[in-house]
Amino acid sequence: MKQLDFKVQGFLFSGISAGIKKDGKKDFGLIYSEVPARVAGLFTTNAVKAAPVQLDMERIKRGLCQAIIVNSGNANACTGNQGLRDAKRVSSLIAKQLGIDEKLVFPSSTGVIGSPLPMKKIEEGIPELIDHLSPEGWMSAVEAMMTTDTFPKVEVATCRLKGKQVKLCGMVKGAGMIRPNLATMLSFLVTDAHIKAPLLQRMLEKAVEVSYNRITIDGETSTNDTVLLLANGKAGHPSLSHMDRDGEIFQSMLLKVCQNLAESLVKDGEGATKFVEILVQGARNKEDAKQAAYTVAHSPLVKTAFFGEDANWGRILCALGHSGVQINPNRIDVFFDKAPIVKNGMGVGARLEEKAGQIIKKKSFKVIVDLHQGKSQFSVLTTDLSIDYVKINASYRS
Amino acid sequence: MKQLDFKVQGFLFSGISAGIKKDGKKDFGLIYSEVPARVAGLFTTNAVKAAPVQLDMERIKRGLCQAIIVNSGNANACTGNQGLRDAKRVSSLIAKQLGIDEKLVFPSSTGVIGSPLPMKKIEEGIPELIDHLSPEGWMSAVEAMMTTDTFPKVEVATCRLKGKQVKLCGMVKGAGMIRPNLATMLSFLVTDAHIKAPLLQRMLEKAVEVSYNRITIDGETSTNDTVLLLANGKAGHPSLSHMDRDGEIFQSMLLKVCQNLAESLVKDGEGATKFVEILVQGARNKEDAKQAAYTVAHSPLVKTAFFGEDANWGRILCALGHSGVQINPNRIDVFFDKAPIVKNGMGVGARLEEKAGQIIKKKSFKVIVDLHQGKSQFSVLTTDLSIDYVKINASYRS
Repeated sequence: MKQLDFKVQGFLFSGISAGIKKDGKKDFGLIYSEVPARVAGLFTTNAVKAAPVQLDMERIKRGLCQAIIVNSGNANACTGNQGLRDAKRVSSLIAKQLGIDEKLVFPSSTGVIGSPLPMKKIEEGIPELIDHLSPEGWMSAVEAMMTTDTFPKVEVATCRLKGKQVKLCGMVKGAGMIRPNLATMLSFLVTDAHIKAPLLQRMLEKAVEVSYNRITIDGETSTNDTVLLLANGKAGHPSLSHMDRDGEIFQSMLLKVCQNLAESLVKDGEGATKFVEILVQGARNKEDAKQAAYTVAHSPLVKTAFFGEDANWGRILCALGHSGVQINPNRIDVFFDKAPIVKNGMGVGARLEEKAGQIIKKKSFKVIVDLHQGKSQFSVLTTDLSIDYVKINASYRS
Repeated sequence: MKQLDFKVQGFLFSGISAGIKKDGKKDFGLIYSEVPARVAGLFTTNAVKAAPVQLDMERIKRGLCQAIIVNSGNANACTGNQGLRDAKRVSSLIAKQLGIDEKLVFPSSTGVIGSPLPMKKIEEGIPELIDHLSPEGWMSAVEAMMTTDTFPKVEVATCRLKGKQVKLCGMVKGAGMIRPNLATMLSFLVTDAHIKAPLLQRMLEKAVEVSYNRITIDGETSTNDTVLLLANGKAGHPSLSHMDRDGEIFQSMLLKVCQNLAESLVKDGEGATKFVEILVQGARNKEDAKQAAYTVAHSPLVKTAFFGEDANWGRILCALGHSGVQINPNRIDVFFDKAPIVKNGMGVGARLEEKAGQIIKKKSFKVIVDLHQGKSQFSVLTTDLSIDYVKINASYRS
């Protein structure tokens, strides 16, 4: 663990065990801002949306949030009207005890889907949860949202905006490979910067586009995915409302924090033994590059070859060939890091292939595909497909 | 093994070991018709096409074929101009020794890609291959094209056309899960029926659409996939040229044979322990039904749950939600065989779920999804994702 200071002016955190998880680990967390914060958010594109996601998507329209509640162990998804009522009730109980407007409370959940929230346990846990709120409670809140994550994923960064020191702290929980039982990714970011909600939203979208939207583990999209960014303005600088030089400074800090968190997600992919960047370049356009990169990154044959440390480039060409992208097989080059393995659609020969074969033995490497069709490129981070992935996901509920 | 008679009038078969495979098993096969046969064919849609596929796609335009050569152990894919020259040379040597026109010979290959064909071994094997041709050689030819298949996949059927007995024999080799190192599916069908090439092609397309095109194991499409149907007319009935009553009889026999072969492919999927039909009904249109069915069938989370015998219906809803198909989550019903597990997007309760939980323990079952959006449906056969799949594919080349 990095020894980092996660205190951010005006934010309090808490995480406790409310008995939702069977193993007694922390499963109920709270992030609270002393004043209503500007909020930006992004939610799952899955048509099946968990109850808390539905509620947050409604509440975020006002642009303000003062508290995020999170529980693990139960996703509150596919729970119908009961699920919505439960999510509302949790937020209203929290709001009442914090003395704030219920609509400023954003619930979120992750875990098994299809079961109603254990409301009794949750209600009983609320006093303790609020009681534990403290500026130092960050790691407890992080632990409370972890599921199969093997380590907590946190980042902190600072910058100066209009002469004031500004801090940004981010946490994310396990896309795993991706999270089993609905692959939930939750990420919460808090800052004392003073940024108007529309700009904050644009900044978050830009950062997510090149971080969380660039990682893929098994191509699944959860019902619960949520990214929330809260800015409470406690740093005391004049408000940012458009993308000026200070805006750029914050944007670049936000982007870096999200990228680091996204990388740590992939590194903690369920059963992952490899951490691989797939870069497709020389595509006719961005869409082609993206589609080709994702097809390679999702190919079970490519991913099992990574796991087996087999520089089986034929599987990469095969994936490109059925990606739906217009390609000329005879012009494709492939490199593992800097070592060529395919030139003009053919193997480079045993001697050079051996070099590439050494690179695939590394924990982390890059696969570069050049389609030689144009100038666009797209990069995505992924993992291998391991025996442990199957084991973890075959037995998740039992 | 079924005790079946695979003799078809006017066809001879052969299969030998030419030393292409390392383990000394049969790897070189030949199907020969005493007279030029009408031919229909379907080839991989992968943009990366193996050399023999490129050649066959050219040759099939004439509508005639007299010999199919097949080798396993080497796919002759991603081998550039050398690969094309090699494929041509093999067919010309075979043609010369058989005393037939080279353009009537259709080569096909399966195995590791990116290596040139071992031409010396192949050339030396040709005399023996031809020498072994016999009406009883069917199973040797089947063995010669097997790779990780654990059993030979063959079908035979008969019917009467215009008063004459007609026979159809089919063989297919391993889509595995799907075939590693390019997932090749090869299927050859021979009949003594007399059917003109354009009608034969339409019949084959129709049969493949509801057989080989309805199975999916890992969503990969090989560079070498080939289906060829030869009709040599030896049964002696007047030629069929359009879809009359006799045409329908043959069509339905062809369809059944292809479906049986397709089912056996799935059952022999690499590492497969489950054989699952995914039926999506109540879709707005066929495309939606197809897309939803494939998304469920390809979902690693759904497939690992099958392997773990976990009736984790949330993963099915999740897959439907990110399938890109417009759905109303609150109207979705799901059944395992006849047992309901999801009603209106929610679990049916512990007692009923237990019943569905029993069904998933079976070797073979059906998942029925009703979207309640319309009247279209689509069905696809698939497998689970097992630990053995990863093992087989991680170590395929080593």
